[in-house]
Amino acid sequence: MTANKIFEELNPPPRLMMGPGPVNVDPRVLNAMSMPLLGQFDPAFTEYMDEVMVLYRQIFQTENRWTFLIDGTARAAIETFMVSTIEPGDKVLVPVFGRFGHLLTEIAERCAADVEIIEVEWGEVFEPQQIEDAVKRVRPKIVAMCQGDTSTTVAQPLAEIGEICARYDALSYVDATASLVGMDLPVDNWKIDCVSVSLQKCLAGPPGIAPITFNDRVAEIVNRRKHIEKGIRPDGFEAAGGPMVSSNYFDLGMLMDYWSEARLNHHTEATSMLYAARECARVVLKEGLQPCFNRHALASKAMVAGLEGLGLTVFGDKSHKMPNVTGVYIPDGIDGDEGEMVRSEMLHDFGIEIGTSFGPLHGKIWRIGAMGYNCQKHNILTCLAALEATLRQHKVKMPAGGGVDAALAEYRAAGQ
Amino acid sequence: MTANKIFEELNPPPRLMMGPGPVNVDPRVLNAMSMPLLGQFDPAFTEYMDEVMVLYRQIFQTENRWTFLIDGTARAAIETFMVSTIEPGDKVLVPVFGRFGHLLTEIAERCAADVEIIEVEWGEVFEPQQIEDAVKRVRPKIVAMCQGDTSTTVAQPLAEIGEICARYDALSYVDATASLVGMDLPVDNWKIDCVSVSLQKCLAGPPGIAPITFNDRVAEIVNRRKHIEKGIRPDGFEAAGGPMVSSNYFDLGMLMDYWSEARLNHHTEATSMLYAARECARVVLKEGLQPCFNRHALASKAMVAGLEGLGLTVFGDKSHKMPNVTGVYIPDGIDGDEGEMVRSEMLHDFGIEIGTSFGPLHGKIWRIGAMGYNCQKHNILTCLAALEATLRQHKVKMPAGGGVDAALAEYRAAGQ
Repeated sequence: MTANKIFEELNPPPRLMMGPGPVNVDPRVLNAMSMPLLGQFDPAFTEYMDEVMVLYRQIFQTENRWTFLIDGTARAAIETFMVSTIEPGDKVLVPVFGRFGHLLTEIAERCAADVEIIEVEWGEVFEPQQIEDAVKRVRPKIVAMCQGDTSTTVAQPLAEIGEICARYDALSYVDATASLVGMDLPVDNWKIDCVSVSLQKCLAGPPGIAPITFNDRVAEIVNRRKHIEKGIRPDGFEAAGGPMVSSNYFDLGMLMDYWSEARLNHHTEATSMLYAARECARVVLKEGLQPCFNRHALASKAMVAGLEGLGLTVFGDKSHKMPNVTGVYIPDGIDGDEGEMVRSEMLHDFGIEIGTSFGPLHGKIWRIGAMGYNCQKHNILTCLAALEATLRQHKVKMPAGGGVDAALAEYRAAGQ
Repeated sequence: MTANKIFEELNPPPRLMMGPGPVNVDPRVLNAMSMPLLGQFDPAFTEYMDEVMVLYRQIFQTENRWTFLIDGTARAAIETFMVSTIEPGDKVLVPVFGRFGHLLTEIAERCAADVEIIEVEWGEVFEPQQIEDAVKRVRPKIVAMCQGDTSTTVAQPLAEIGEICARYDALSYVDATASLVGMDLPVDNWKIDCVSVSLQKCLAGPPGIAPITFNDRVAEIVNRRKHIEKGIRPDGFEAAGGPMVSSNYFDLGMLMDYWSEARLNHHTEATSMLYAARECARVVLKEGLQPCFNRHALASKAMVAGLEGLGLTVFGDKSHKMPNVTGVYIPDGIDGDEGEMVRSEMLHDFGIEIGTSFGPLHGKIWRIGAMGYNCQKHNILTCLAALEATLRQHKVKMPAGGGVDAALAEYRAAGQ
């Protein structure tokens, strides 16, 4: 047998991750992940599961009983909601304002939905009336959309959407992965039926587990398809009449049985990721939701001021900009591959990651994030200083120190 | 706003997890999970992805290019294989010898397969001839089975199965979650087309990420359904003609694009869990596969000797017993709920978790695991001593110290 090739000990280079996410994880969350495991039905562990439900109800500002975790990345939770509620041929309306609207569309199509989309230019959002008109015309079972679409750095106002959907008997689903706790999303007040997210943006956790919340309207639809696996099925159980959900892993009904006092075995809960999710919520709730929103809003103001202070142009409809990510046009004179070169020099010379972009914006803008644990003054200033220095290597003309000055002024004005 | 309820700091009680898994995670793996994150396209991170592929090729004893991770628990990887290869109406044969055979059946059914099962009593395994006869009769596209089914503590010999399947042009899939690195599974030598696992058994990691390997026969079938998401689709790309995989998250073709040099964005890889998977493999490969198998085999011998030394009866066909988990009949005089009381006293008084059982074995046997990091002499002895003491509280008559004596004798005989 040849010798095993086991590589070096894990030693990730230090990075300041100022892209659209994942971002640096809060050290308290990293610590939580190194805690010893518990068995999945250990009373100490099921208590942690229950606590996670209570914590995320507060994060989602909801009374929804069904508030728990999906063991996968953000899109796993989207798919869980869709595959468990959509029956073949059901109408789904997706207002698309960026790449992740296309993702919602694609997942719905794979669930055999009859999908209609409405679209605005990347960088813009919908008027509530446009959505109401589309709902009236399509009469969908589900309206699915993003709150913030990081691909375009703008956020759709959602305060009226839940109400509009309810009026036409449609379920409203929101993917708030990119925005949750970076801006307000009062799930119950806004009457949104289901919201899912993941940890690696403003929640300052690692990717790989996805909190979800949904109300009784959703639960009722799911329960029409209720099923229990052979091998753990109680005597006398009869499946509900609806078509079986085409996924076992994402069958919400079975997940509800696992997360409720029934505690029916399904998958083995991802223990360490649950620890991470629990700690992410504790960190945010300890700060408080409103202070957390404020921190992101101030960082956004500072970042915009800083970029403009360097003479750069911020992308998109500023009145609907996501607070936690800022698009900035790649300046004149930096063409084609040179934009990628700048990003790579930022990484290589300063250890700072900023984001590229997709689709129609590819090669036109960079995306700079400041969210979760990274959403702190010193990171904004460091990033602006490094960007200035790097662009200077490429002969871009800028007011010296204009980025840091302008950003710092915003923080000073806020008394920080 | 009412005060936030944030609970206590995470502080899991110390447990020795001697159930069928999850088990205690190797501290080196816990450490790896607390390392800082990297961006998903950071060159340092994609290098770790490539290293993970090299490491798991060694773990699976394969040259398969396609050897990577699925971001979910064990059943996520099963579903990934099935949903990406099964088209509606395809025939799938599942030889069922325990609960996890039923799980394979159920997942295949949800993928709209035409499933046939063959069954043996729980505690027994199949003769290769039985499987060949069924393959000949059913002519399935896929034969799916477990290596070890923890629900029954026995392992199916697989050396001839790949060859049989190949002869009848069927794909062979093996769920080795419960057994990998606890016993031999030379994927290439045994001509198995696809194998998937997860970390929380003999690999001594946390649940939540699932290594998979598959060969070109599988890749070819997957590629007939190749698809790329709108929003990241290169100009001029045309989807292959086959029916679209009904899951986005589990679309193997897209996962291959993410894990290859194409590096097309799909989900955001679960960074910390990838770190864990990398470290699990390094730990096993540092020990060596054969020493790791030997360690599990010796622990199994010691555990069996110890249980018999206490006058207890081991469950199932001992010649096919899984080395890492041992079923033991609940002794006479301990009836009904008292069996659960014993388990709960073991947990409460000694901090030791042993397993209950499912289906026809429920209330009849306990399942005691010794795998991965926990598969060490002192854990076997401690568990036997605690079991004796606990059973003694329930007036079960046993030779005093008979468990530890017999187990220790096995270790001494092996020079340990």
